[in-house]
Amino acid sequence: MEQANVSNRDCGLLYGDGLYETIQARSGRCIRFDKHLARLRHGSEVLGLPDGINGFDISQAAFELLEANGLKDARIRITITRGVGAGPTIIITADPLSEFKMETSRAIISSYRRDEMSPLVGIKTLNCLPSVMARMEAEAAGADDAVLLNTQGNVAEGSTANVFVVKGNQLVTPALGQGCLPGTVRAAVLEIAPALGLEVGEDVLCQDALFEADEVFFSSAIKLLRPILNLNSRKIGSGNHEVCERILKVLVRQLE
Amino acid sequence: MEQANVSNRDCGLLYGDGLYETIQARSGRCIRFDKHLARLRHGSEVLGLPDGINGFDISQAAFELLEANGLKDARIRITITRGVGAGPTIIITADPLSEFKMETSRAIISSYRRDEMSPLVGIKTLNCLPSVMARMEAEAAGADDAVLLNTQGNVAEGSTANVFVVKGNQLVTPALGQGCLPGTVRAAVLEIAPALGLEVGEDVLCQDALFEADEVFFSSAIKLLRPILNLNSRKIGSGNHEVCERILKVLVRQLE
Repeated sequence: MEQANVSNRDCGLLYGDGLYETIQARSGRCIRFDKHLARLRHGSEVLGLPDGINGFDISQAAFELLEANGLKDARIRITITRGVGAGPTIIITADPLSEFKMETSRAIISSYRRDEMSPLVGIKTLNCLPSVMARMEAEAAGADDAVLLNTQGNVAEGSTANVFVVKGNQLVTPALGQGCLPGTVRAAVLEIAPALGLEVGEDVLCQDALFEADEVFFSSAIKLLRPILNLNSRKIGSGNHEVCERILKVLVRQLE
Repeated sequence: MEQANVSNRDCGLLYGDGLYETIQARSGRCIRFDKHLARLRHGSEVLGLPDGINGFDISQAAFELLEANGLKDARIRITITRGVGAGPTIIITADPLSEFKMETSRAIISSYRRDEMSPLVGIKTLNCLPSVMARMEAEAAGADDAVLLNTQGNVAEGSTANVFVVKGNQLVTPALGQGCLPGTVRAAVLEIAPALGLEVGEDVLCQDALFEADEVFFSSAIKLLRPILNLNSRKIGSGNHEVCERILKVLVRQLE
């Protein structure tokens, strides 16, 4: 199950030819595991990866990995590559996670962009260089994360997160055709928000909408929701992130 | 020098965070080695990879690898990743190459495209999924390779090659801003062609220019020049590839 090394002929290494998922485990339970696996299976079909995911019980492997490492709260990463030769390579790692605590972000709008027309859009592939570089670009600018636009100049997503905008009681996130991943927490937020009195929408989101918002936040599997307090050194809204925190409270309860 | 495995925490595997070069070695000599190394160094600067390429004699390592494997004619691949922690990971592999023989290609125009605006354009990174998928798309269509367009719908390059178009005595290849790699053989062709009475140009190349050409061919480090006889099942020109073969003759002499 555990494997410390990978062949230097592995297609994952040679071409970034594979997929991954990052999953939050709490009290030994993987949060939204079925959603992550469904995305992985879909990606595997799109890439035409060799069969092997279906014959391999990832859920059981993840569970045994947590047990073997005495971990209850962990960040689990599942990586599946086209492998070397016949079968796929499946790697599962687990790293300890400390108690959940909301972070905030200072972000920039990156010069790296998503191609919303790519047949790979929406697939969580190992081709992550634009995200890595966008993060480095942010750090060089004294920020910690980045918002990526698509080729039309509209908002796509964060470097490893989805983006939400709050204006009044409206909560909007870029539609799936805009070059973003179908995030598991993105879906959860869209599900939770109406019960909190918010009108939710998936739409085209222009850059200006970020600067004119009351709140902007990232959503992702490990950090859940992260309010963006500054974007390109401009303060977002009044600095308040009340809506974000109300939704986050529900997400944090789901970790228990 | 040789390493059969790579850590499953290597950034090259996790994010495709690295670069590579594929080099043709003949009679123990690496063809256009300085050009490949220069591109690798440039890419390394763009990605901000940890220092280590400069302190490591890749040329010597490649030479020793050929010696150790008793290889004279080989396909050498150099992979450099951001590694795990401090230094970069450097992998060099060599596979035997048989005597050079011109191949021809049946290609398609891919639904995968290059983003000519990406800051990563022109860098030979490990994020090769669009190329892998374009090749698979070609094979599914009964072809063997693909031409990728850019976001403007103009010709960028092949899946792992540059593209040249011959019309009369004019030889044109997409300009570097069009989303292609600065291929080492591309540069060699541009250098060789004028002495053969050809007018060379680097330009915007629309899709139609391919279908209206006398000849179209791919250029790459291992296969050198490959005439495209069919594109999207349409015959290119009269099926003649005389210009391509004249240039190829010079390139093949350079292997000696």
